[in-house]
Amino acid sequence: MMDFIASLLVIFAASAIGRFLSKKSNQPTILGELILGAILGNLAFLHFSEDIDHVADIGILLLLFSAGIAINFEEFKKIEGVSIIVASSGVVLPFILGYFVAVSFGFSNTVALFIGTSLVATSVGVNAEVLMELGKLGTKTGTLIMGAAVVDDIIGIIMLSALISLTKTGVIAIEKILLLIFSAIAFVFISIVWGIRLGKYISKKVVIRKENLLLAGMLFVLLFALIAEKIGLSMIIGSFIAGLIVGQTHFSKEMEEYISLIGGGFFIPIFFVAIGMHFDISAFFSVTLFAIVLLIVAIAGKLFGCGLGTKLCRFSNHQALLVGTAMIPRAGVELVLIKLGIQYGLIDSEIASAILIVVIVTTLISPPLLTKILRSF
Amino acid sequence: MMDFIASLLVIFAASAIGRFLSKKSNQPTILGELILGAILGNLAFLHFSEDIDHVADIGILLLLFSAGIAINFEEFKKIEGVSIIVASSGVVLPFILGYFVAVSFGFSNTVALFIGTSLVATSVGVNAEVLMELGKLGTKTGTLIMGAAVVDDIIGIIMLSALISLTKTGVIAIEKILLLIFSAIAFVFISIVWGIRLGKYISKKVVIRKENLLLAGMLFVLLFALIAEKIGLSMIIGSFIAGLIVGQTHFSKEMEEYISLIGGGFFIPIFFVAIGMHFDISAFFSVTLFAIVLLIVAIAGKLFGCGLGTKLCRFSNHQALLVGTAMIPRAGVELVLIKLGIQYGLIDSEIASAILIVVIVTTLISPPLLTKILRSF
Repeated sequence: MMDFIASLLVIFAASAIGRFLSKKSNQPTILGELILGAILGNLAFLHFSEDIDHVADIGILLLLFSAGIAINFEEFKKIEGVSIIVASSGVVLPFILGYFVAVSFGFSNTVALFIGTSLVATSVGVNAEVLMELGKLGTKTGTLIMGAAVVDDIIGIIMLSALISLTKTGVIAIEKILLLIFSAIAFVFISIVWGIRLGKYISKKVVIRKENLLLAGMLFVLLFALIAEKIGLSMIIGSFIAGLIVGQTHFSKEMEEYISLIGGGFFIPIFFVAIGMHFDISAFFSVTLFAIVLLIVAIAGKLFGCGLGTKLCRFSNHQALLVGTAMIPRAGVELVLIKLGIQYGLIDSEIASAILIVVIVTTLISPPLLTKILRSF
Repeated sequence: MMDFIASLLVIFAASAIGRFLSKKSNQPTILGELILGAILGNLAFLHFSEDIDHVADIGILLLLFSAGIAINFEEFKKIEGVSIIVASSGVVLPFILGYFVAVSFGFSNTVALFIGTSLVATSVGVNAEVLMELGKLGTKTGTLIMGAAVVDDIIGIIMLSALISLTKTGVIAIEKILLLIFSAIAFVFISIVWGIRLGKYISKKVVIRKENLLLAGMLFVLLFALIAEKIGLSMIIGSFIAGLIVGQTHFSKEMEEYISLIGGGFFIPIFFVAIGMHFDISAFFSVTLFAIVLLIVAIAGKLFGCGLGTKLCRFSNHQALLVGTAMIPRAGVELVLIKLGIQYGLIDSEIASAILIVVIVTTLISPPLLTKILRSF
């Protein structure tokens, strides 16, 4: 096994090559990083230090933190309702489609619930990166995408908890789920209302040096990530909200600059290469009809689910297409689900491969599609 | 055990508090970070993720990298000879003193050689940080200190290899040591002569974006660190030389800015807090006369050894005092030596505690002393 420094070196080299190839082929940088990561991860003779995944986690936290800083907060507040509608329709449709596909392929009810849930959660980091690279995060559609992705993540986690309690105990622990929903709402609400007020007050009083500001920012984002995790949400929700708060203070511009530098130049490439490394390409060796249908349903479910939700709220066709496309990638929760499903004996390698194919294909097609749509506007 | 993110959070909080207290008491930031680290490391109920040490390693690499960029290279070339004299006199005196103290306390010849070697290597990171904070790294004395510290590190490693081969096999493997010396000289020479020429050429041709420049810098520093390690030197020598090269290119100013931001705002505080965490304060519970004498000899050996070397090369008294003080801290190789000595059954807990006391006291007194001397000038 390579040690930590050697692993980092190889990953940075892969990222540099990936970025270079992306640029040459006029694609978003993330695509090259994902592909190079997939190549690295499938070379049997390479064994990376396990610490890499921990450092990669910081990458996604910083990505969401800077997305939180960069979005247009006034717009974000206005379209809160729209975000919830878009996220919900983008959750319901893939879930139902996934469930019925599984049932029609002869799987049991529990397995079908599991497969439906596996199509629910979007991978917000992938498209946040593309939106940032093209400078579209502050637009109305960019803000809607981030808002919907956050709500989507929260709904995904609630469904996942319900599914876990169902598989573990045979029933859904309603009071637990309600507590989670209540905590989520309370956390978001308190952070946004009181956090921003406090943040604004402090940022007016304090003068702080460059490196100390970055250190304070790191402290803040890790704190919020941990709080979010403690109440049962995901860390990225916490870091996004930390970003929202910092975005409303005097530190906003400086912090955005620092975080995008340290993120883009160190942690975020590690995150994307590491995602690629988890793409086990051998899943494609035994591709089944079920996998193909599931993939189609996964893409169509988000595209039409989120797209229709967006149209319903009186956005244009182009915006609906943009939002739908941005929500296609799955890469976070699904990999956890595969592990969990195998652990509880719920899924076999056929289902695991099918979900993995969904993860790989959706993650790889969405960035170039999104880039194309954004540029065509 | 805390997970990685929680460990980071606690360390950043300690670092922020340490920096604040340092500022309030007019001390260098590093002192507060070391002390807070020592407190954290000695709280029995806290157990940090082991990955922290790996991330801390990046801190020292970035510190030496930015020191390499920031020093005055023309000056550095001029005083190469002086550096070697200063480092050598600062190695010989503590070694001889340590050896004779050990013999006079009744220890065997091998153990005395071991104790002498444990006083040899200075911990370059500690004072590089102080010099940078006070903006003195580019001065003639700052350059001399860095040059001497690098030579000191190389000599220390050669002595350590000799000691290891002596304890393992009973004889010193001369051809191995000669190969190491040859590789060290070849590496430094080739890097500086050809590396700088190549670096200048490339930096004129290439236009590179912010995050990509940082990524390229990271790639470069990790590559040099690994090469240095592969040929038997320490990683920090490689990263310092990488800094020397980048410092002579068009990227110099930008890279220095980025690295000091990402270093000072993330990795370097982790490094210093982590050093403090390795300070096992219980060593002081059983302080012996031997420990006290060894401590005095450790401080006096560097102060007079390096000081006399500096005077010999016609520097002023003040500069000699400065260089001598800067070379006092020991914190890197010594901790490795303690582990090794216990592993080979060479040293008992009395000797281990004595060396640990030397590490803790020298590391803690040097930054405030150095700050005082620098400010009094």
